[in-house]
Amino acid sequence: MKRIRVKEIFINKKEEHVTICAWVRTNRAQAQFGFLNVNDGSTLTSLQVIYDNNLSNFEEISKYRVGSSVMVEGDIKLTPEMKQPLELHATKVELLGDCPENYPIQPKRHTREFLREVAHLRPRTNLFNAVFRIRSVAAMAIHSYFQSHGYLYVHTPLITCADCEGSDQMFKITTLNMDKVEKGPDGKVDYSKDLFGKQAFITGSGQLHGETYAMAFGDIYTFGPTFRTENSNTKTHANEFWMIEPEMAFCDLEGLMDIEEEMLKYVIKYVLDNAKEEIDFCDQFVEKGLKEKLEKVLSSSFVRISHHDVVDILLKAPVKWEFKPSYEDDISKEHERYITEYFNGPVFIKDWPKDIKAYYMKVNPDNKTVAAVDLEVPQAGELMGGSQREENLDVLLKRMEEMHVSRKDIEWYLDTRRYGGCVHSGFGMGFERLIMYLTGVDNIRDVIPFPRTPKNCEY
Amino acid sequence: MKRIRVKEIFINKKEEHVTICAWVRTNRAQAQFGFLNVNDGSTLTSLQVIYDNNLSNFEEISKYRVGSSVMVEGDIKLTPEMKQPLELHATKVELLGDCPENYPIQPKRHTREFLREVAHLRPRTNLFNAVFRIRSVAAMAIHSYFQSHGYLYVHTPLITCADCEGSDQMFKITTLNMDKVEKGPDGKVDYSKDLFGKQAFITGSGQLHGETYAMAFGDIYTFGPTFRTENSNTKTHANEFWMIEPEMAFCDLEGLMDIEEEMLKYVIKYVLDNAKEEIDFCDQFVEKGLKEKLEKVLSSSFVRISHHDVVDILLKAPVKWEFKPSYEDDISKEHERYITEYFNGPVFIKDWPKDIKAYYMKVNPDNKTVAAVDLEVPQAGELMGGSQREENLDVLLKRMEEMHVSRKDIEWYLDTRRYGGCVHSGFGMGFERLIMYLTGVDNIRDVIPFPRTPKNCEY
Repeated sequence: MKRIRVKEIFINKKEEHVTICAWVRTNRAQAQFGFLNVNDGSTLTSLQVIYDNNLSNFEEISKYRVGSSVMVEGDIKLTPEMKQPLELHATKVELLGDCPENYPIQPKRHTREFLREVAHLRPRTNLFNAVFRIRSVAAMAIHSYFQSHGYLYVHTPLITCADCEGSDQMFKITTLNMDKVEKGPDGKVDYSKDLFGKQAFITGSGQLHGETYAMAFGDIYTFGPTFRTENSNTKTHANEFWMIEPEMAFCDLEGLMDIEEEMLKYVIKYVLDNAKEEIDFCDQFVEKGLKEKLEKVLSSSFVRISHHDVVDILLKAPVKWEFKPSYEDDISKEHERYITEYFNGPVFIKDWPKDIKAYYMKVNPDNKTVAAVDLEVPQAGELMGGSQREENLDVLLKRMEEMHVSRKDIEWYLDTRRYGGCVHSGFGMGFERLIMYLTGVDNIRDVIPFPRTPKNCEY
Repeated sequence: MKRIRVKEIFINKKEEHVTICAWVRTNRAQAQFGFLNVNDGSTLTSLQVIYDNNLSNFEEISKYRVGSSVMVEGDIKLTPEMKQPLELHATKVELLGDCPENYPIQPKRHTREFLREVAHLRPRTNLFNAVFRIRSVAAMAIHSYFQSHGYLYVHTPLITCADCEGSDQMFKITTLNMDKVEKGPDGKVDYSKDLFGKQAFITGSGQLHGETYAMAFGDIYTFGPTFRTENSNTKTHANEFWMIEPEMAFCDLEGLMDIEEEMLKYVIKYVLDNAKEEIDFCDQFVEKGLKEKLEKVLSSSFVRISHHDVVDILLKAPVKWEFKPSYEDDISKEHERYITEYFNGPVFIKDWPKDIKAYYMKVNPDNKTVAAVDLEVPQAGELMGGSQREENLDVLLKRMEEMHVSRKDIEWYLDTRRYGGCVHSGFGMGFERLIMYLTGVDNIRDVIPFPRTPKNCEY
């Protein structure tokens, strides 16, 4: 008999004869009958199985341990009077895989710190089941938004030989034997014997490649892993994370903000619709008011304000700042927090001082600021960062010179300004930052299946 | 006035006033009027723009060069009597970004070899526009299949410190200064100062991590980049490519083949439906009969045959083999080709000699073969490789010992067999292999935006 997923049983909500395979969450045996709570991972809710001493192996079943995998055949009974809408009356229960007493995931509260140490087992808990289901649904939401709006999904390369990001921010990769690296007469590594014949890295961004594809397809996005070598141990930093980087031809800063806002609302709505149970769980156990926060975003219009005006507000605020707000500087975490609370919702901060931003951002007519925009959201802080790109080759080259960016490795990128260049814009969104925002989980280590952070590369 | 995408114009197929932004593909000017062929990347088909000398800048327009970006306002006229269904009568044409005479992508036939050398510009040609649109649509098809069937999308880590694949097949990564690596008293690199405090790699597979998630969610899939250090220059090898790796709990070899077959048919149907124009293009210019080949797969039932029986057929075949078929060995490319032609469609070859397969594959009762299966398709060869996994811990450990696989780094993986283990299966599909099959393009370098192969890491 074909097995059915537990999720389907809850969707069908009808009295039917079924066979399921699942893992035991709890087993409460009494003299005449017992209850198995089982979960097959298809849905957050566990299924209650009732077994009784009419079953020939009743004694055995009553000893099945937490974590074991079982096969259960039986009849679904609707139980509208109970807390759970239905239960499974077993006609046959079989042990598939045993689980010893020392199984780390027992039916009790575990700390998140402990669960990080069993990263391969933690998805078997309700919290991580909910978080990683939301992660999966949110990934689909992103693809769904961009594909339905005509964007091309482009796989930009992760391996690169251009060190335009600054090679100390990138991991070096090699096929050489690190213990016996051959050096040239100048005492430096001889990369001619490395696989690519020169020094190679894994990259922190697909933007430059993305721009070349936007100049062919109009609207494109990337969605892939990204690497940073940052040696910082905070709740928001990881050395490997996923990022989404859309680029749009014929799109200016206002158009960019329209897209960011529409995309975020789409993703939130999609997740609320397709991970209802999981959002409810996070609302109840992770961040009280989460669902209301997300629903509010759907009906709000995001504030758009210049960096200059933000600093005005911060300077007038009745707050003793740790970092003094400045018209020339970046804003700090405390400022971000204040501004999103001040406006009580997501805020676009635009037109940043050019000296603190990247060379490829469009210089505004004031020649002091660039057409860059960060989206700040309550609690999670900066969720997206983007800009109109400098499409004028001469201005771009001047900016590169000012900021000591070598053009040697990126002449191909400059071609986007030589051959039919146009106004265009793009942004980057850290996917983990989004998941933290959607779940209320406050540590990036708990939204990545197997997180990589300094001194931590287990599993 | 809000601009409209060219694709929408062809969908709307109505007489309307529009503004578009696009790139000039050709410009044929006559004395009184001229034709601009423009493409904005939203669709393969270019739009014909008619401009005449009523426009104040007629002289200028007639000199606009190939590759320039332009803005055109005007009226759509339906032209049912012509080859193209509609054209745009310009009321205004404006140059956005010029393009010099030396623009490499001129309206003529370029070789694929030449276009590889301008990888950042080649998506502006019809061929690569079609190929990379199909790639994007196929990626969405895969997500769509797995998500609609209840699978969890899991992002397995790319950075790993476990060298269970054999470290010479993986790129080493480091944050150390390669020119001045510090060594310990044993003459080996002192990794204690590296970011993770030990030697790290980028991985070639997420399978082991995927299995741990299948033991929590039931059905999962990965879809991400993968790296191999193979120093081989063939049409089917690249050092960076994308892979899909699904893992299913409570699923045996037959169930696995059912899923592979259903998934492939789903993806083909999705691509035929959502990249119609692009498939037609490839059918016409890349592989004659491509569309028919794909459509035939939809209605066929894939052959399932054992490796043993395949060798029987090969030995009886009236062919002089370069490599003699053997019951103990792998089959070669010439054998693959013969078998798919023999059955004239996709073929599952199952139950392979255990000595040539990986340690984690389920040993069959004969103790000679494993429950592994490769899907071979006409022309493209092996498209998927999978197996039922060995769920018996003792057998698995014995196999690891036989094959000299160290258990030191993968005790966490072995936990999947300790704690509620069950029959489970999974497979891997190289995404580029799929795209080659779907487009007829025969070189992997032409289905990856910026391919990485030995001695080749440009852009």
